[in-house]
Amino acid sequence: MINKLVDKIKKQNAPVVVGLDPMMKFIPEHLKKAAFAEYGETLEGAAEAIWQFNKAIVDNIYDIVPAVKPQVAMYEQFGIEGMKVFQKTVDYCKSKDMVVIGDVKRGDIGSTSEAYAVAHLGKVQVGSKKLSAFNEDFATVNPYLGSDGINPFVKVCKEEKKGIFILVKTSNPSSGEFQDRLIDGRPLYELVGEKVAEWGSECMGDDYSYVGAVVGATYPEMGKTLRKIMPKAYILVPGYGAQGGKAEDLVHFFNEDGLGAIVNSSRGIIAAYTKEQYAKFGEEHFAEASRQAALDMIADINGALHK
Amino acid sequence: MINKLVDKIKKQNAPVVVGLDPMMKFIPEHLKKAAFAEYGETLEGAAEAIWQFNKAIVDNIYDIVPAVKPQVAMYEQFGIEGMKVFQKTVDYCKSKDMVVIGDVKRGDIGSTSEAYAVAHLGKVQVGSKKLSAFNEDFATVNPYLGSDGINPFVKVCKEEKKGIFILVKTSNPSSGEFQDRLIDGRPLYELVGEKVAEWGSECMGDDYSYVGAVVGATYPEMGKTLRKIMPKAYILVPGYGAQGGKAEDLVHFFNEDGLGAIVNSSRGIIAAYTKEQYAKFGEEHFAEASRQAALDMIADINGALHK
Repeated sequence: MINKLVDKIKKQNAPVVVGLDPMMKFIPEHLKKAAFAEYGETLEGAAEAIWQFNKAIVDNIYDIVPAVKPQVAMYEQFGIEGMKVFQKTVDYCKSKDMVVIGDVKRGDIGSTSEAYAVAHLGKVQVGSKKLSAFNEDFATVNPYLGSDGINPFVKVCKEEKKGIFILVKTSNPSSGEFQDRLIDGRPLYELVGEKVAEWGSECMGDDYSYVGAVVGATYPEMGKTLRKIMPKAYILVPGYGAQGGKAEDLVHFFNEDGLGAIVNSSRGIIAAYTKEQYAKFGEEHFAEASRQAALDMIADINGALHK
Repeated sequence: MINKLVDKIKKQNAPVVVGLDPMMKFIPEHLKKAAFAEYGETLEGAAEAIWQFNKAIVDNIYDIVPAVKPQVAMYEQFGIEGMKVFQKTVDYCKSKDMVVIGDVKRGDIGSTSEAYAVAHLGKVQVGSKKLSAFNEDFATVNPYLGSDGINPFVKVCKEEKKGIFILVKTSNPSSGEFQDRLIDGRPLYELVGEKVAEWGSECMGDDYSYVGAVVGATYPEMGKTLRKIMPKAYILVPGYGAQGGKAEDLVHFFNEDGLGAIVNSSRGIIAAYTKEQYAKFGEEHFAEASRQAALDMIADINGALHK
């Protein structure tokens, strides 16, 4: 799947992933009104509004953006109905040939970690059959529990030719509380980065590993260091746009082949219509605003990369 | 909810939580056969088998055990059908007045972390209504992202009078890879423990905080240190039994009031019938074997505590 991701990034010339994090406040009134009219102000109604919102955005970006990253928390908060839309969104994006990164940040140990890996990337044994659950292409994983948490994911990645992105240095202001603490003179995130390189060396695609990393755009200097520590890891870079990461900062996350990083934007794309810059589209045409914002983001990043 | 947990532990004289981690291999053949006969070898069939298994165990332990800890990964791997049974299990245990600790180990930042908190402990806004999703009493949370990840949970805990257990030192062999690394001469888990005490000081119940910690039974010396660092945090202790933790090691996790810790056993209870010690019950009577194993565990721990 890492090969497919790299191919799509090359073909569309767009090292970009759109975060499908549909908070209710981003969803245009007309979609909410229609959904609530049909299902009432219920979890089902909320889920229907999210589904219509996601579908319109995907329809408007799938030909220019290689990947989407649905944030499962935004679905999980609507319970079973939310999870149904998560699944529907994953399936729909795959039917449009997009690569789907489940932003699930799961992390546990042993058989539990294996169950998460199976839930999101693999197949579960039911009697004599092997069945898929959510079946994303990639998942994000938390490293705090060490190798016992990661190995079961790596095993499933090998079997299914899927991938993971392990949290190394997150984009938020307080990420340094633990991640930056010095251990033998070096920050924790560097040690985690070294383990990512080690875990990833066991399951390589053509040029990059099935095991990637998450490093926030908001920490470009750390990105530069981590790029060297994990040369074969694809870096998923959150924090561009809304969180303050700029295109010129992103160059450090890429290798000299122009590859090695994929930059995420969530609300910058899906809620573009709420911004002055794209207000001309109007709320009705929110998905066209998203397309324009995606095109602008791609141009912005490619501009910085090819300067 | 921490007050209710403490009350129940006192009343039942049982500082014990049963992990409802229903792996398919633990489920007796007759339950699987019946479920597959009705629904086929499908995710729905697996979910039905899990539900019948859980229900029988809960019916046999609710009067002697104060709390259950369903491990969501074991349900998530069966997709939507699995999550429905997770929800059904949570609801059923609450109807039996058990305290439910959702072992979800979620962790993200800002609005995403808030969405997870809402999903598992709070209420989500849908139009003019506030609705519940999974609605457990407690959830487990991963600290790797720092305060940005924890604060939204603390906010929801205050609003809803619910609680969290933050991973501090996990029970697995490789937990030391990151958690034990020395920072200014002290292991990372101690720093996380200090933050747990700090986060928890803001939302106190009568004697203990709504913010607890997870510390593995397999590391009793570290438990002793962490007990002192976080005197007001309830410690959820996994790793007893199957993972090697012994009752005499557990005393270090308790305060002098005989409270402050709740010990988890999962397969030791739910799969008791597969062990020689309880084989006499037979597979048909698996839930009675679970009851006996729970009684034995309570006696074992109380014996060590009152020595």
